[in-house]
Amino acid sequence: MADLQGFMLPRSPEGRASIVPAPPWHYSGDVLTIEYRTDPANVAALLPAGVGLADDDPGAVAVIWADWQSCSEGGEELVDPVRSQYKECFVVVRCTHRGETYSRCVYIWVDKDFALARGWYQGYPKKMGSIWMTRPVNVGRAGPRLQAGGRLGATLAANDRRLAEARLTLEAPSDTAGFVNALPMLHSRWMPAIDPASAASLDQLVTMRSLDVEVGPAWTGEPALRLFDAPGDELSALEPVEMIAGYWRQVGATFAGGQTVD
Amino acid sequence: MADLQGFMLPRSPEGRASIVPAPPWHYSGDVLTIEYRTDPANVAALLPAGVGLADDDPGAVAVIWADWQSCSEGGEELVDPVRSQYKECFVVVRCTHRGETYSRCVYIWVDKDFALARGWYQGYPKKMGSIWMTRPVNVGRAGPRLQAGGRLGATLAANDRRLAEARLTLEAPSDTAGFVNALPMLHSRWMPAIDPASAASLDQLVTMRSLDVEVGPAWTGEPALRLFDAPGDELSALEPVEMIAGYWRQVGATFAGGQTVD
Amino acid sequence: MADLQGFMLPRSPEGRASIVPAPPWHYSGDVLTIEYRTDPANVAALLPAGVGLADDDPGAVAVIWADWQSCSEGGEELVDPVRSQYKECFVVVRCTHRGETYSRCVYIWVDKDFALARGWYQGYPKKMGSIWMTRPVNVGRAGPRLQAGGRLGATLAANDRRLAEARLTLEAPSDTAGFVNALPMLHSRWMPAIDPASAASLDQLVTMRSLDVEVGPAWTGEPALRLFDAPGDELSALEPVEMIAGYWRQVGATFAGGQTVD
Amino acid sequence: MADLQGFMLPRSPEGRASIVPAPPWHYSGDVLTIEYRTDPANVAALLPAGVGLADDDPGAVAVIWADWQSCSEGGEELVDPVRSQYKECFVVVRCTHRGETYSRCVYIWVDKDFALARGWYQGYPKKMGSIWMTRPVNVGRAGPRLQAGGRLGATLAANDRRLAEARLTLEAPSDTAGFVNALPMLHSRWMPAIDPASAASLDQLVTMRSLDVEVGPAWTGEPALRLFDAPGDELSALEPVEMIAGYWRQVGATFAGGQTVD
Repeated sequence: MADLQGFMLPRSPEGRASIVPAPPWHYSGDVLTIEYRTDPANVAALLPAGVGLADDDPGAVAVIWADWQSCSEGGEELVDPVRSQYKECFVVVRCTHRGETYSRCVYIWVDKDFALARGWYQGYPKKMGSIWMTRPVNVGRAGPRLQAGGRLGATLAANDRRLAEARLTLEAPSDTAGFVNALPMLHSRWMPAIDPASAASLDQLVTMRSLDVEVGPAWTGEPALRLFDAPGDELSALEPVEMIAGYWRQVGATFAGGQTVD
Repeated sequence: MADLQGFMLPRSPEGRASIVPAPPWHYSGDVLTIEYRTDPANVAALLPAGVGLADDDPGAVAVIWADWQSCSEGGEELVDPVRSQYKECFVVVRCTHRGETYSRCVYIWVDKDFALARGWYQGYPKKMGSIWMTRPVNVGRAGPRLQAGGRLGATLAANDRRLAEARLTLEAPSDTAGFVNALPMLHSRWMPAIDPASAASLDQLVTMRSLDVEVGPAWTGEPALRLFDAPGDELSALEPVEMIAGYWRQVGATFAGGQTVD
Repeated sequence: MADLQGFMLPRSPEGRASIVPAPPWHYSGDVLTIEYRTDPANVAALLPAGVGLADDDPGAVAVIWADWQSCSEGGEELVDPVRSQYKECFVVVRCTHRGETYSRCVYIWVDKDFALARGWYQGYPKKMGSIWMTRPVNVGRAGPRLQAGGRLGATLAANDRRLAEARLTLEAPSDTAGFVNALPMLHSRWMPAIDPASAASLDQLVTMRSLDVEVGPAWTGEPALRLFDAPGDELSALEPVEMIAGYWRQVGATFAGGQTVD
Repeated sequence: MADLQGFMLPRSPEGRASIVPAPPWHYSGDVLTIEYRTDPANVAALLPAGVGLADDDPGAVAVIWADWQSCSEGGEELVDPVRSQYKECFVVVRCTHRGETYSRCVYIWVDKDFALARGWYQGYPKKMGSIWMTRPVNVGRAGPRLQAGGRLGATLAANDRRLAEARLTLEAPSDTAGFVNALPMLHSRWMPAIDPASAASLDQLVTMRSLDVEVGPAWTGEPALRLFDAPGDELSALEPVEMIAGYWRQVGATFAGGQTVD
């Protein structure tokens, strides 16, 4: 009996069937970030036992849309782009654990299965959704330019319901693209026991950070955000009390693994 | 800090955000099964260490298409059918472990995220695909009747490539709907460590069986099957050497958990 | 230069490329109908010049979900079901023209391109949408039985927004499945001139009726309906004032062409 | 009875329900072109009566992938990008009519309904498909740069079958982006009669050209193309005999209508 191969399921004789190849995973894409404040109690309600609110600006939330191209080390997926391109919308808060402050993704939707699998591996709690974001353009009249006055929109839907809509009107170049998603991540990996009455089979706190981050020029502007109710989601509980800012930037990064956190 | 709720990710204040509610999970649907023999070495190559070929007919394979409606105990998903209906195509072989003979799903594709998550929980190695199967009809000319001569087709695609096509021409009522997927399942649950250099965080052999199985009349007939190559799949390695039979039947069942296998 | 072949676009050397084969077209499927009354002015606002409100119950509207299997005369699509199955949601009113009373489809969404093309040919003003409807089941716990108390749901979304939701709680067998969609259709076929300043290139009133209609037992019950706003739709203007009834029935029918109406 | 409003179907009280707003339509996007020669008889077989092969290089074919953002005059779709972004793959040949040489789109697939409707209006014989193309990137390792050696891929699928795959390895800047799709278009608008035995209701030769064309820097390189058989398509009959070249360029353009051709 030869050993089964492959980084994730399904494991197979050659390892080619895995829903995603092994890391490192490379990413290049456009990222639109909307930052705002909600009642810090809404953030606290999303933190697991032993994890606390950030000391500074504890109610800060980032809702982030990204349009990615991604690949594993060989890069073969790049010329079969159905296997390399995906879009996502995710929600990040900050938190503290044993004296360190982290970013933490609390909700996230993607539109490809390989991206969902990477997320479950990394502790990003991914579900499938339909994600769209305006692209700045260089030619023609069908899109904003990356300049003051450029208007971008972004939307998220799941199960045929719209869950979120954002608008960003560009105002000026920016030195940053926000502070909420800027720290190492503190994520929970979770798999219940096959006997539902038993303790979880996987209940792990992990941390990770991006490598080889390369960014393009950032723009900031006037943000707007609407969140909508849906029976299978609690996103709308993170209701905005005060908008902070919005950003757009191109980002490249590599993920090569993380560590468990005691 | 209140504890997070929810059976699976994302865990949330109310537990409504979980990609799927807790078991029990109920299923009602149409199931088309194609059984054939491949070289037993192709089956052996898909079994993990410690698991062996079935003594009897070790090269037998079932490729199964199912069009399901499913729900959790409350059944609320049933009136929001985007959250209860899904289709799947899966491949089952038999195997032995410590003297017991089991069925084992080695590849499976579904078209909804809640179904994918249930599969990862149960050790079904689910990926997303596009699945279609002919429905027998009771009125009109746009479909076969459940009677001799009725012709059904079923297809599977993933990443914009067709992976499998089946045909079934009904011949006669049947007492069974095949033998390959008829045993308790022996599945592997698998999650690599967040540090890719470390041993897997979850590497578990589990078993489960359906409860409260209710079936409609079964039909059997002449099967045909074609499997196609794709860069991210190894399905076509399970090439048919000899067809056994095909079946169609309506099935209802409940899943309420399983057990780990030492 | 050999003549191009094919019933619709694209026309090609063999005629196989046409988005849909020539009629006759056969249909077999499940149909869920919600009938209600809106302000008759809302119906009148959807009728073209020369077409008037029905004398009797002029504000009656039917919103209909259907889950179809369909094929052309040869029936080859039936064993490649991605090309034969589709779902639709459509809105029907009644109207009068030259002393005759007709049914008229004013809005309709489908989820396959071949169905959209058939609709444009027939004067059904089809757009793409995501349509789901509960299926009654015969086995298992994941669905209603066709009996009193059975609860069915149906939804429509387009452009990632939910546009309509219906519920039907079955009460009793019924001799009919509604009256709004029961007459010959009076449809408008419309194509603007390639010079947008000129009169339309196709502006035609047509009528058609189904052939060889075969129906299964009908059930009636308590209906509920919600319509939602969206920027690219006016469906929600047809707001319900009074519910009439709901129905579920299996329907088979054939379309073989229609006639222009002077 | 107020007149119905709206450029295309469905026509409605306010005109908002039209599957697409009235022209002008603006486009900004990325365009990847593969040019090659097939047997000129394959091109001739796709030309309607009265239209002949181009005198020069009559077997030249362009298969073009485009990733567009588009909008109508107001531009409101741009901030609801599910209604403005789409991808397409189309096949263009050249032809002559009454002494003029034209480009002509013979096959085309898009992934949004508003784009399909625009095509039917313009004589582009659009069907729905799944289209993907690699994006050049400016940051990170997940994509080619716009420079020599950059590798791009593009794919087309319809009805769960892959129909075409292209590769382009960039070599050098280019003054052009090909010659096959560079002329005014000569298209056929076609709608059969509602009585299938009658002559077509719309059978019109039209021409159009893009306005306000704005292009970014073009790149050329080594092309590769594979076309695959499918039961509902004849694309693979246009088999490549000799590759010409490949191109990538950003394009902006406006469509504001065309003219009929006698």
